[in-house]
Amino acid sequence: MRLAAAFGKIKEGYMYMTNIAILGFGVVGSGIAAVIEKNALPIQRMLPDGINVKYILDKRDFPGSPLADRVVRDISVITGDPDVSVICEAMGGVHPAFEFTMAALNAGKSVVTSNKELVASFGDELMSAADKNGVKYLFEASVGGGIPEIRSMRTSLASDSILKIDGIMNGTTNYILTRMKNDGVSFDAALAEAQSLGYAESNPTADVDGIDAQRKIIILAAVATDRLAADSSVYTETMTKISALDADAASRCGMAVKLIASYAALDGKMSLFVCPRFVKGSNMLSHIDDVFNGIMLSTEMTGDVMFYGRGAGSYPTAAAMVSDVVAAAKNSAELPMKWKKAEDGFVIPFEENSFSYYIRIKADSPAVTGESVRLVVGDAETLASSPVGYAEFITPKIKEKDMRAAVSGGSLGEVESLIRVLD
Amino acid sequence: MRLAAAFGKIKEGYMYMTNIAILGFGVVGSGIAAVIEKNALPIQRMLPDGINVKYILDKRDFPGSPLADRVVRDISVITGDPDVSVICEAMGGVHPAFEFTMAALNAGKSVVTSNKELVASFGDELMSAADKNGVKYLFEASVGGGIPEIRSMRTSLASDSILKIDGIMNGTTNYILTRMKNDGVSFDAALAEAQSLGYAESNPTADVDGIDAQRKIIILAAVATDRLAADSSVYTETMTKISALDADAASRCGMAVKLIASYAALDGKMSLFVCPRFVKGSNMLSHIDDVFNGIMLSTEMTGDVMFYGRGAGSYPTAAAMVSDVVAAAKNSAELPMKWKKAEDGFVIPFEENSFSYYIRIKADSPAVTGESVRLVVGDAETLASSPVGYAEFITPKIKEKDMRAAVSGGSLGEVESLIRVLD
Repeated sequence: MRLAAAFGKIKEGYMYMTNIAILGFGVVGSGIAAVIEKNALPIQRMLPDGINVKYILDKRDFPGSPLADRVVRDISVITGDPDVSVICEAMGGVHPAFEFTMAALNAGKSVVTSNKELVASFGDELMSAADKNGVKYLFEASVGGGIPEIRSMRTSLASDSILKIDGIMNGTTNYILTRMKNDGVSFDAALAEAQSLGYAESNPTADVDGIDAQRKIIILAAVATDRLAADSSVYTETMTKISALDADAASRCGMAVKLIASYAALDGKMSLFVCPRFVKGSNMLSHIDDVFNGIMLSTEMTGDVMFYGRGAGSYPTAAAMVSDVVAAAKNSAELPMKWKKAEDGFVIPFEENSFSYYIRIKADSPAVTGESVRLVVGDAETLASSPVGYAEFITPKIKEKDMRAAVSGGSLGEVESLIRVLD
Repeated sequence: MRLAAAFGKIKEGYMYMTNIAILGFGVVGSGIAAVIEKNALPIQRMLPDGINVKYILDKRDFPGSPLADRVVRDISVITGDPDVSVICEAMGGVHPAFEFTMAALNAGKSVVTSNKELVASFGDELMSAADKNGVKYLFEASVGGGIPEIRSMRTSLASDSILKIDGIMNGTTNYILTRMKNDGVSFDAALAEAQSLGYAESNPTADVDGIDAQRKIIILAAVATDRLAADSSVYTETMTKISALDADAASRCGMAVKLIASYAALDGKMSLFVCPRFVKGSNMLSHIDDVFNGIMLSTEMTGDVMFYGRGAGSYPTAAAMVSDVVAAAKNSAELPMKWKKAEDGFVIPFEENSFSYYIRIKADSPAVTGESVRLVVGDAETLASSPVGYAEFITPKIKEKDMRAAVSGGSLGEVESLIRVLD
C-alpha cells in the first residue's frame, strides 16, 4: 500500500513530480528505489510532489519487482524523455558510465552519482559539461557513503579555507584493521571474514592496496582546490603489509593503525597520499572502528571538523544519492565547481613530506640500536615491551626522502616495519 | 592592505555586494568582521562581489577599528536601509534581540544568529515572521559553533528520518569532565581552570547545570520534528555532582562520563532530556575530549552520522554565521521550517524513559549488596576494583520511574551515585 502510494502517482500527478532514471539496478541502484519508497514522507518536505522512478536502465529484468515495468535497455529512451530531470548513475566503472553521463548532461539532465572511479578520472570534463548545459553533476555518495562531507564543503565550509584533510575512507580495510587491533586476528583471517560478511570483494585489491581511498581523496582535494590530480601523482601504499606486531605496537603507544588518505594545502601546491598510519589517541580518527569512515577537515576559521558515519552500504549510499536528487531538483546553491586537471608539479613529490615514523628493527641489543637510530634521525622515543629480538622507536619528524636514504643505506640495520605517524 | 581590499569596496561596488549589519560587536560579532576580511577570497567563490559590513549596532565605540565609522546606536537606521539584506544577530540574550530580529524580518531582511536562547525560546515566531516576509532566519551557529550539523539536517539528511540525537553540546563542561578523567583533577579545580582559560563564565550555571545544552537539544529536536519544546518539559540534570569516584568508575568499565543532550522519536512523540551519562567506549561520543563538541544523529537510512568540531569560540561561531549569510544571500534551498510549540504531552515524561544505570552504594559487603540489587533490578554487573566501603554495579535497562522508586524506597541501601549509561 505504501509502495503503491510512492510509485503509483505516475498516472495522475507525474507532471509535477521529479522524474528520475536509475542507471544500474544493483545494490546501490535498488537502494535508491527503496529509499524513495521508505522515505516518501520526509522527501515530500523537500519536494512536495515527490520523486518518481520513471526508468531503470539495466541489462537484467526484475520480474516481481514493483518497478519491473520501468526497466529499459537503451539510454536514449531516457535521455530523449523530456519528463526526466535527474539521472542517478549507479553503474560503477568508467565505461560506459562516462558516455551515459555525458549523454545525459548534454541532454540537459542533472546527474548524481556514487561512482568514485568516474568522478576521480573524469570529474573535470563532466562538471564542465554540466556547467555548459546549466545542470548539475553531484557526487556526495562517491566519498563516505551517506556522510554529508561534500555538501558541507560546498556550503557551510565553502566560505572558509580547507587547509588539510585526513580520513578513513575505506570501510573494508578499517574493518580488517579493527579486527587485528581488538582481537589479534591476522590480516588474512580478517580479510576472509570481511569477504564472508560481504564487506570485501572477492578481489580485494582496490580496497587493501588503497586504490579506493586514493580515488576518494583525489575527489575531496578537487572539491577543496578545483584541481583534479592524476592518480599517478598520488603516492599510495598497500595495507596488506600491516602485521599483528604492528597492531600491537600501536596499542602499546596509545595509537591505532589506520589506512589514512591525506590532503594538505602547501604553499600554493598540495600534498596528496594514502598510506597506513599510526594514529595518536588524541586524534578522533584513531577511535573509528569497524566499517565506519571518518573525514577530518582542518579549516582556517572553523578549526577541525570531523564527519563520521557509514562509508558504504546500499541504504546510506542511496540516501546520499537521493539527497543529491533533491539538491539537483531544487537547484540548490552550492559552491560552483570548475575542476581542471592538476598541473605537473601541483602535487608535491611524496618524498618531500615529513613524518614522524614508527620503526621496528631486528636487533639483539635495543640499546645499541637506539644509539644508531639517534645518530640517523635524532632523539627517537624507544618503545617499552618490544617483542624479543626487536627494537622499536617513534622518530622525530624527518623528511621521507631522508628516512628512505637511511633505510636503504643500511644505517638503521634490518628495518622490518616503517609506518608513518599521524598526530 | 588586505583589510582595505575587503572593506574598502564600499564606494565603487557596494550595490552588488551583500551588505550586512552586525548586531553586537563582542567576541562573536567582531569575529564575523574578521572572518569576512580573512576569508574574502573563499567567500568570493560563493558571492563574487563579496560581503560588506555596512553597519555595526553597539552601545560602545570602537576607536581605532577600521570599522569604527560603521557603528550606529539605532536599529532603525539598519532596518530602514534598503541596501542591507542580511543582519547578523550576535547580541545574545532574549531582549532586545527578539525585538530587533522581528523588526529586521518585518523589514524584509534575513537574519542569521548564534543566539541559542532566543532560537530555543522564540524560534517558532521568528521563523513564521521570516516565512511571511519571504526571508530567512538561519541559526547554524546556535548549536555546535562551526559544526555544520543544522545545515546537514536541512539538506543532505532532510530526505531521511532522524530517529535519535545524542550530543556533547557544551564545551565548558566537556573540558571539566576531560580534566577529571585524564588528570584526576577535582570538579572545583577543573572549573576554576576552565574559568581562567576563558572557557567558562564567572557564573557557570548555564553550562554546568545543563541549561546551555538544553537549549541546543530543543533546537535540534525542533529541526527534526518542527516542534519547539518548552524548556520546562526537558528534564535537565546538573553535572556538578560528578565526582572523581564517578570518573574513575567510568574508566574502570571502559566508559567516560559526559554531559549528553538527547532527543529520540518515540511513537509520534519525543523523548528529550539532558543529563550526565556513562558513555560506552564503542560510542564515539566517549572519545570527544576538551572543549570539542560532537553530535550523533541516528537516521533511518543513513544510519549513524556524527559531526565533531569546536562548539564555541569567536572564529568557529563567526564562520558558521558567515556561511548562513551566504546561504541567505543565495536563497539556498534548505528544508523549510515551520516550527510550532510542542503540544502538551508531546515530550514524554522523563520517568517513562528506560536506562541502564551505574550505581554506587555505600556498603561493607558488596556480595550482600549485590544480592539486594539483583532482587530490585535484575542481573546487574558488579564492577571490579571498587573503592573500599563501596559496591558498584551496572544495571540492566529499567524504567527511570522504577529506579527512582527503588532508590527512594531504600531497598538499594545508601545510594551515593546514580548515572545513566549511554550505549
